[in-house]
Amino acid sequence: MPAAPVIAIVGATGAVGVELLGSLARRNFPLSQLRLLASKRSAGREMRFRGGTLIVEELTENSFDGVDIALFSAGATISRRFAPIAAAAGARVVDNSSAFRMDPAVPLVVPEVNADTMQGDEAIIANPNCVAAIAGVALAPLHRAFPIRRLQMATYQAASGAGAEAMQELRDGTAAELRGEAFEPKVMPHPYAFNIFSHNADIDPQTGYNGEESKVIAELRRIFDLPQLPVGVTCIRVPILRAHGMAISIEFDQVVDPQVARDLLSDAPGLRLVDDWAGNHFPMPSEATGQEDVLVGRIRTDLGDPSGRTLTLFVVGDQLLKGAAQNAVQIAESLLPAH
Amino acid sequence: MPAAPVIAIVGATGAVGVELLGSLARRNFPLSQLRLLASKRSAGREMRFRGGTLIVEELTENSFDGVDIALFSAGATISRRFAPIAAAAGARVVDNSSAFRMDPAVPLVVPEVNADTMQGDEAIIANPNCVAAIAGVALAPLHRAFPIRRLQMATYQAASGAGAEAMQELRDGTAAELRGEAFEPKVMPHPYAFNIFSHNADIDPQTGYNGEESKVIAELRRIFDLPQLPVGVTCIRVPILRAHGMAISIEFDQVVDPQVARDLLSDAPGLRLVDDWAGNHFPMPSEATGQEDVLVGRIRTDLGDPSGRTLTLFVVGDQLLKGAAQNAVQIAESLLPAH
Repeated sequence: MPAAPVIAIVGATGAVGVELLGSLARRNFPLSQLRLLASKRSAGREMRFRGGTLIVEELTENSFDGVDIALFSAGATISRRFAPIAAAAGARVVDNSSAFRMDPAVPLVVPEVNADTMQGDEAIIANPNCVAAIAGVALAPLHRAFPIRRLQMATYQAASGAGAEAMQELRDGTAAELRGEAFEPKVMPHPYAFNIFSHNADIDPQTGYNGEESKVIAELRRIFDLPQLPVGVTCIRVPILRAHGMAISIEFDQVVDPQVARDLLSDAPGLRLVDDWAGNHFPMPSEATGQEDVLVGRIRTDLGDPSGRTLTLFVVGDQLLKGAAQNAVQIAESLLPAH
Repeated sequence: MPAAPVIAIVGATGAVGVELLGSLARRNFPLSQLRLLASKRSAGREMRFRGGTLIVEELTENSFDGVDIALFSAGATISRRFAPIAAAAGARVVDNSSAFRMDPAVPLVVPEVNADTMQGDEAIIANPNCVAAIAGVALAPLHRAFPIRRLQMATYQAASGAGAEAMQELRDGTAAELRGEAFEPKVMPHPYAFNIFSHNADIDPQTGYNGEESKVIAELRRIFDLPQLPVGVTCIRVPILRAHGMAISIEFDQVVDPQVARDLLSDAPGLRLVDDWAGNHFPMPSEATGQEDVLVGRIRTDLGDPSGRTLTLFVVGDQLLKGAAQNAVQIAESLLPAH
């Protein structure tokens, strides 16, 4: 891997693609060239990067010649087809889709949690689901000190997880509602203005869990290498733009003092403690949006568990940053020499 | 109690007061006279009721002469002062505030759950917190069949719980945000447009739970007569107008088949099952608003509990109706003769 590699972004014009450019720039990622790849429809479009202008190229089978690291964010179908092509051309792939996340040969990485699962030679590395990545950052420092035995979660998920069009539909539908006009949703299956609804991923007819919930469960188990970890989760879309919230109850194998947990969380990388009881100031999307750090607060002993072994907390992270683009760029940073 | 009593509404011009008039009308409550009471500031205002017009009177110590049932919804301070005065004047009081909810001499009633706790002669009957009332309707049919051992909840609470001004602030703040203009919140402590935040009730410095959460715990224990029930709950405000959502995990003392639970819930009063797995259609505020029934769905075995004894479900109810005005009117109905 060169010290300043050639980077390609697949799906550069999507909601996450735009943030991949932003994260590479903000984090001063050393690169010799940046290639922007997208569908034929988006080819020719200009995008700004570090004060210059780049032209989006059409993604083809020949797009990866000379590419050292390819950041994929164009959906699982594109990843399944083109990630092996990129790998065969010698690129290392960081894939933001769900295509390879459960492949045992592919590490699933949140750098703050399990960077050590990368051996250094994998052709493809998977970037987790946004909820799993954001929760992972908050859970890791606790799990290192006190093994986690069980998780219960309820999410407050933003429009951005369904893409830029969903974000626009939330804004347009809300504007129409405020004007008292009818609005027909096209991206989301339900009205989104001043409304919440169960995440629109398909329901597993065996368990009743939806696809998003199943990903959160399977990926948290993989990221923490706890294949039997009981995880209950309800994923709900709320009318916010780009930061996911989540209430998490964590059962440990022993009683954990909330102040000890607070100290562990306040010292951990990628986290910012927002836990002001007197001021009633806790993690909010309005303060997490555009931020690299995941916000954590409302840390307290869970009164739902009389054994005292459960803590509960509220976590908010930018879905497009730690939940997607930034985590992928952090993985790419770990591929650089002398890292 | 006369067959057509004289009814007074204290706090008639507030968000709940308006819905008290609406619920009395919609449910064809038999009454011989309706008196609307409010602060001096609102006195003289006209309100429509059953095709006629009523004039709001100023609340005074003499307001309750001849009143049979007084419905209070003007906050705990007003209730503490005037409910005893109304009772001394011979009225039976249904109080929507938190003033008397934990008073052992005052029944705390959700009619679908514990109407039997009213002896028939109480001067004051308390109407529960909105989350407790809405959750109670969904929990009661299950608890009757399979005793509840433990609850874990996360709420998605609407603006209406903070009053009509909070609803307007959500609309105004969102409109400003969509225009790209600055907006300074005055009612809520945090920006509400496209944002969520921990419920703004004060935090108990001992437990870290906020006042809303503490009410939910204490009131559910009281309503179900389970004084030791472990309840964990996180209360979050989301930018919706008037229906509360809640994810509830319920641990029973035995394994409960989700289909058995579904059947119990679909037959229960005050509930409507919305649990379409194939169509991904579940309870939503957009469909609960203005509805008397509480919506329940996402009924499944909780994968967070390997014993299989926990079910999880998602519940949405109109905060101003079943969460407040309608429940109060239902209590008043039970005070009528030959009920």
